[in-house]
Amino acid sequence: MRFDADLPLQSGQRIGGYTLAYETYGELNAARSNAVLVCHALNASHHVAGVYEGQPRSEGWWDNLIGPGKPLDTDRFFVIGVNNLGSCFGSTGPMHANPQTGRVWGADFPVVTVEDWVDAQARLLDALGVPTLAAVIGGSLGGMQALAWTLRHPERVRHAMVVASAPNLTAENIAFNEVARRAIATDPDFHGGHFYEHGVVPKRGLRIARMVGHITYLSDDVMNEKFGRQLKPAADQAVPTPHAGEPAYRYTTQDVEFQIESYLRHQGDKFAEYFDANTYLLITRALDYFDPARAFAGDLSAALAVAQAQFLVVSFSTDWRFSPARSREIVKALLDNRRTVSYAEIDAPHGHDAFLLDDARYHGVVRAYLDRVSL
Amino acid sequence: MRFDADLPLQSGQRIGGYTLAYETYGELNAARSNAVLVCHALNASHHVAGVYEGQPRSEGWWDNLIGPGKPLDTDRFFVIGVNNLGSCFGSTGPMHANPQTGRVWGADFPVVTVEDWVDAQARLLDALGVPTLAAVIGGSLGGMQALAWTLRHPERVRHAMVVASAPNLTAENIAFNEVARRAIATDPDFHGGHFYEHGVVPKRGLRIARMVGHITYLSDDVMNEKFGRQLKPAADQAVPTPHAGEPAYRYTTQDVEFQIESYLRHQGDKFAEYFDANTYLLITRALDYFDPARAFAGDLSAALAVAQAQFLVVSFSTDWRFSPARSREIVKALLDNRRTVSYAEIDAPHGHDAFLLDDARYHGVVRAYLDRVSL
Repeated sequence: MRFDADLPLQSGQRIGGYTLAYETYGELNAARSNAVLVCHALNASHHVAGVYEGQPRSEGWWDNLIGPGKPLDTDRFFVIGVNNLGSCFGSTGPMHANPQTGRVWGADFPVVTVEDWVDAQARLLDALGVPTLAAVIGGSLGGMQALAWTLRHPERVRHAMVVASAPNLTAENIAFNEVARRAIATDPDFHGGHFYEHGVVPKRGLRIARMVGHITYLSDDVMNEKFGRQLKPAADQAVPTPHAGEPAYRYTTQDVEFQIESYLRHQGDKFAEYFDANTYLLITRALDYFDPARAFAGDLSAALAVAQAQFLVVSFSTDWRFSPARSREIVKALLDNRRTVSYAEIDAPHGHDAFLLDDARYHGVVRAYLDRVSL
Repeated sequence: MRFDADLPLQSGQRIGGYTLAYETYGELNAARSNAVLVCHALNASHHVAGVYEGQPRSEGWWDNLIGPGKPLDTDRFFVIGVNNLGSCFGSTGPMHANPQTGRVWGADFPVVTVEDWVDAQARLLDALGVPTLAAVIGGSLGGMQALAWTLRHPERVRHAMVVASAPNLTAENIAFNEVARRAIATDPDFHGGHFYEHGVVPKRGLRIARMVGHITYLSDDVMNEKFGRQLKPAADQAVPTPHAGEPAYRYTTQDVEFQIESYLRHQGDKFAEYFDANTYLLITRALDYFDPARAFAGDLSAALAVAQAQFLVVSFSTDWRFSPARSREIVKALLDNRRTVSYAEIDAPHGHDAFLLDDARYHGVVRAYLDRVSL
């Protein structure tokens, strides 16, 4: 969807002549009352469910949750997935040309915030003829968007589902983001964010950024269970077994020794092939900047007073990136405002990644909540 | 101290003609029974206490614990600090020339392990005329050395003090080390570890490595307390205050916005000025490889059966790098062997860094334990 009118941004800048990639699933009912907006996190897109014809590996990132008969049932709801402004999966972003200069935006792409995304999504809903949302749902950074929807456009949201999220980032969260950003920005192939015109990609930095991120998405327990201290077997290596059947260490500092290293390198390599470096900076910054309580001297209850929606808040016990304690802050602030809020703390081993996984208790909660939503 | 005889290493390699930098404090008594060896962690050295004449900022890294009248009392004990082989503070390491080739070792320096360090330390004690240790003490990687002493040279250690340590690294620990190593090894200035001959230093990688490390040394709580979401004030910036006295965001993806970013960048910059990149790879690998239970099919109790020392094990409640649960594994394995072990779990907010800080309860435990050590 093309938007010609300028969108005013939180930074004071404006952006005009932009495009948002989106997908819809199911049918908007006659009363236009069954729309559900799905907000994505760092590296996802508008492609939330289903597969593209002839591309069996093109499964949507939340396909286990969204579809016919699934917890977010597309037989009942009209589901909208949208790629956010500044991302790199079809919507206007840093790799596109600034219409005013004809030059690729690169690092000059305007800094966008969670609130800016919500405003852009609202314009998309206008264009789609959707006056109000039955629900807005998102996990992690997507949960921040769901929360922001209830504050920016309170009259347009009946239910907000905030999963594995937080009312703002802690210093530690910001610190991990900053490590990732520094890895990218100090890669000599970054060229201050204008690498496109040099025909290179700061892959070293992207790899490091992804490796750091990946560690924080998983729990210590699940990493130990999946990888532990297992060594990576080398195809060309006759493995001596000097100790009780254990393969020998190779004693290397630069090559892979442990399976966890191999896994992380693989994740980093994959990511560096498809993700835009400037988008990574923008999206981690949107995470850092989100802080609705900021305009209320840190008082989250005051910040959420304007919300009219009913809420489902979900957290996961082993999520140390967005811990249950952070979700409870949201719940408390909502209760302070006498809002209707359901809260589920799911005992799951998978860390932050749990919000993307098919967990019966988690999906059961989402299904039960949505079944209750009247259209 | 110069050593001409080859030291056989765990990897099967040997290293000869090496030097160890060391310092001693206090006097060895006539019975040679009051020696305490202090083992250092990743980025520390033999300079454990005191200041060098005319250099007021040269304080030893464990000066709050070690000195006259301090918990490790140099009026009573003969304290030995030693810089480990492969480190970069005076002992032979990757920046020195391989005597066999005349060429700087660089990435070809042999991979050294905790056990290798312990063996090298034992030779230093031989040269100093110290037959047995009243105690060996270390924190983090230093605690691994203290534990390894009781296994490699059980008859030479009467007390082992293992602080903020673990019987091996978890997958998550290894993962963080691997991110740091990849940041260094993929820095174009690393040149496969032979950057010395190119007259450059892989500072970008060292900075990222230190930033990642630093996050894991602190607790989430202490980072929030020290930095929280505070913005960095810019000297040249007239700070507008649009919201309830809060300074405005600058909306930048590459410049510093938050105090925590400024702090981490500063730590990274400092580190990159003095620490050797190859040493960083070697020392993080020594951490990864340490795993005494490995030769016993993972049975830590079997691995520790050979130990004869008495033990003090100390952990800190908010240390998520080497959590109390890991220390308790050591305690349990020692108790399985009916060893005498004291265990203190210190409720401290500072995370892994707590072992370096002056905490009254922690230092009280160390003092009380050492007071009981007979000479």
